[in-house]
Amino acid sequence: MKESLLKEITRIASEFESLSAQYKEIYVTAESLTAGFIGASIVEIPGSSGWFDRGFITYSNESKMELLEVKEDTLKTVGAVSEDTAVQMVEGALKHSSLATIGVSVTGIAGPDGGSALKPVGTVWMGLMKKGQKAYAHCFHFKGDREEIRLQTTLMALKGLRALTLGENPDSVFTAL
Amino acid sequence: MKESLLKEITRIASEFESLSAQYKEIYVTAESLTAGFIGASIVEIPGSSGWFDRGFITYSNESKMELLEVKEDTLKTVGAVSEDTAVQMVEGALKHSSLATIGVSVTGIAGPDGGSALKPVGTVWMGLMKKGQKAYAHCFHFKGDREEIRLQTTLMALKGLRALTLGENPDSVFTAL
Repeated sequence: MKESLLKEITRIASEFESLSAQYKEIYVTAESLTAGFIGASIVEIPGSSGWFDRGFITYSNESKMELLEVKEDTLKTVGAVSEDTAVQMVEGALKHSSLATIGVSVTGIAGPDGGSALKPVGTVWMGLMKKGQKAYAHCFHFKGDREEIRLQTTLMALKGLRALTLGENPDSVFTAL
Repeated sequence: MKESLLKEITRIASEFESLSAQYKEIYVTAESLTAGFIGASIVEIPGSSGWFDRGFITYSNESKMELLEVKEDTLKTVGAVSEDTAVQMVEGALKHSSLATIGVSVTGIAGPDGGSALKPVGTVWMGLMKKGQKAYAHCFHFKGDREEIRLQTTLMALKGLRALTLGENPDSVFTAL
């Protein structure tokens, strides 16, 4: 599973070269559980400085508040793994990126600890947003170990960025899982 | 080479669990060429929220200036791949992390393009710093392809963070390459 996920991540990351030539979008990431793997996957492809601006690795709650303006009240009431946090993360990422036009955020529980009945291990909220438009959020329930959850999250983040670039509804991409 | 580098990265990342228990350091990353891979490697290990605060993926020059306060004059005169930029990146990362006590920064040329006679592909500057102390910088000249250069950079970053944690001189670790 890991090998095929890594291959698929590289395959989709490589599509951004031609997407960039056609659509001229520039991307920003805000990552909690993946902690940089989405950004690292995007820049696997030579020339990626043409379509990748920056990324925020916001692992602690403090970093989510300080770098992305996630509200303390949100973290206290609905938690870091929530629709509201994912939306505020992607809004903050675009706000704090002077170049990016499309953002993605991910926050979730990679395990093996940290899960609960309401939010089991594998629960991941993703935010997607085009600058100036309304943010979109999606909840995933991934199976697998810590690494597999992070790889699936990365793959879906790239698919989400591609969907927004093409003007597709991300749900149509995600439901094909 | 890639497989053995990945294994060694995981092995050293796993040491931070016991290092954290003993030294209570908290880490921040500022990554250009690796674009998140150092952060992602640190959080491979369950429980890493205990020792990893946040990371800055500063791929564009704009992001280096806006997120880490790298000086425009530095980027113009000595360039993004330089000792001064690496030092300013790690200083900025620690300044903009409320929790971290140790930081690492990397900026370099992963190739295949972007190299020059003075700064060939594989040139990587790394900054390392303990909060309140003077930043340390080191220049690497890695061999290999784009991925191998990024993996070697990540491995050395983890070794650098470990050296600072243990109070060792990073040079003694790096020269054992």
